[in-house]
Amino acid sequence: MICIIDQSRLPYALVIEELRSSDNVISAIRDMKVRGAPLIGVTAAFGMYLACLEQPGSGHYLSGVCEKIKATRPTAVNLFRALDIQMKHLFSQKDPDERIQNTFNAAKTLLEEEIAACRNIGEHGLAIIEAIANKKQGVPVNILTHCNAGWLATIKYGTATAPIYMAHEKGMPVHVWVDETRPRNQGSRLTAWELSQAGVPHTIVTDNAGGHLMQEGMVDMVITGSDRTARNGDSANKIGTYLKALAAKDNNIPFYIAIPSTSIDWDLRQGLRKIPVEERSPDEVHFIEGKTREGAIRSVRITPENSRASNFGFDVTPGRLITGLITERGVCKPEEKSLLKLFPEKT
Amino acid sequence: MICIIDQSRLPYALVIEELRSSDNVISAIRDMKVRGAPLIGVTAAFGMYLACLEQPGSGHYLSGVCEKIKATRPTAVNLFRALDIQMKHLFSQKDPDERIQNTFNAAKTLLEEEIAACRNIGEHGLAIIEAIANKKQGVPVNILTHCNAGWLATIKYGTATAPIYMAHEKGMPVHVWVDETRPRNQGSRLTAWELSQAGVPHTIVTDNAGGHLMQEGMVDMVITGSDRTARNGDSANKIGTYLKALAAKDNNIPFYIAIPSTSIDWDLRQGLRKIPVEERSPDEVHFIEGKTREGAIRSVRITPENSRASNFGFDVTPGRLITGLITERGVCKPEEKSLLKLFPEKT
Repeated sequence: MICIIDQSRLPYALVIEELRSSDNVISAIRDMKVRGAPLIGVTAAFGMYLACLEQPGSGHYLSGVCEKIKATRPTAVNLFRALDIQMKHLFSQKDPDERIQNTFNAAKTLLEEEIAACRNIGEHGLAIIEAIANKKQGVPVNILTHCNAGWLATIKYGTATAPIYMAHEKGMPVHVWVDETRPRNQGSRLTAWELSQAGVPHTIVTDNAGGHLMQEGMVDMVITGSDRTARNGDSANKIGTYLKALAAKDNNIPFYIAIPSTSIDWDLRQGLRKIPVEERSPDEVHFIEGKTREGAIRSVRITPENSRASNFGFDVTPGRLITGLITERGVCKPEEKSLLKLFPEKT
Repeated sequence: MICIIDQSRLPYALVIEELRSSDNVISAIRDMKVRGAPLIGVTAAFGMYLACLEQPGSGHYLSGVCEKIKATRPTAVNLFRALDIQMKHLFSQKDPDERIQNTFNAAKTLLEEEIAACRNIGEHGLAIIEAIANKKQGVPVNILTHCNAGWLATIKYGTATAPIYMAHEKGMPVHVWVDETRPRNQGSRLTAWELSQAGVPHTIVTDNAGGHLMQEGMVDMVITGSDRTARNGDSANKIGTYLKALAAKDNNIPFYIAIPSTSIDWDLRQGLRKIPVEERSPDEVHFIEGKTREGAIRSVRITPENSRASNFGFDVTPGRLITGLITERGVCKPEEKSLLKLFPEKT
């Protein structure tokens, strides 16, 4: 059994849910009870462990579960990487007990690696915030982020938020502009909730607002996560990230992607039109959930009955718009050469 | 008495409201029952006529009403222009009956001028759509628009929508990507409703989606309105317009602003940091209205209780990002020289 926070219930309720079967894992990922590239990967890895508990001896069953988990979400590369690791363990070992032990250990290792990566991303990113803070001499550093690349998405610290949390803990004055992130509002529902819990000053803005804030000098830097980054730095992240990167470039504001190497797709030379972009249900655009004055959680329709909607989940920000990738091994330019200096084993 | 459509009730209900006093006019504009730069101007002009009916002889009263109407919305220049016209009529005439007659005539003239301007904008914009349609040989022309610059905003035809309606009426295949336009969702609430009524194929997308659609070749052109355009073409429009203009530029997609000359501020050489940008209540970000499954219209809170929100209403798209301004006298480059060729009387 593994325990997750059901993120679809936040910020209205903090509900811990027990996933007792690989089927539970499949629906938790598909329904976005767990989301965020690193967390999806770790949950998928534990899903294979649960599948092993179910039928450790059946290669057919285990491959079937693996395919079903693969089919849940197409964009984040962590999912596929985690499943590849687990399938290698299963192929290399026929003994059922060993399979169970190995998949558990691999999932636990991945979890620990993700936590360590986020801590290191935090430290490397902190240096960037610190440099801006030094120039601003006590005036808060304004950081804009899109979607949620916080600890909810990554187990601990977060990717984009890790440097922010560390700066805040060190007493540096920071203020975060939180993009609402339609249609699922991971910014206002999850990032704002996380920052509230940690006492980090923040303001929710609509996804439309960032350009104006940048034009008016109200943003010092942008940090977002990435669900999949290609060797040339092209990064798929929550839809709308590309628009913020364009605005940052147009206003000479540094735009960083915080990314553990588990989200780098070393098989892709470039990302544009190569990274599969998930298309989700139009109902996520038609309906929205909120709290009534009486405290009930209700879903309401916010579009005319006769209108269609479309709902692409991600866009790809070209490397040329990115100032730097903040990885667990340091900050580098969004290009293959610089990435390989940090990860020479991928040459 | 003047009759308006209460736009804050759409698309859930089509409610005609009677404005019987200048006070009614003030609250209708402030509460955005009427919105859209040209419509705000015309409503303000009729507001001064109603004020004249109330106290035609009192310059003090009339100036007071004028100031109150001025204070409702700061960005659209049409409001100030309409009030200036009416105040000139009032200053040049002391006879109460003449004042009433003159302000009524001036408001009616403005209304007729706005309708004529939109019809002409439609014809000039139609030629642009036609040129794209000819190249696409029967494949629908995909047009993205932001906010509502339709007939609801302008009395008839619309500005951005006028060329679209005309193309549709002529049997040209068009498809409109309708930006939701958070926080007040004028796109999904008003533009989608308008297009539905007219039978124009359209799809609602979140404000985050346009960049991806453009990267993927799914947008042939962008048309939006403008609440105030400076002599150099810088145009203030609903917040988020600037982000779409950046994405259009990055993908070599033509980006047009459809604008009657009543929305041009001839007193401004440039718009960036000169056009006042309205900041509205954060509650527009915190709460959203929609229809429950039972058909009731309910407002729900969509942000955590402890989080602040900010709500700027407009941003300024620099002229350099705009392909052309579609005015009632023709299409021109977003620059003073080209504008003055169409409007030599403003030299």
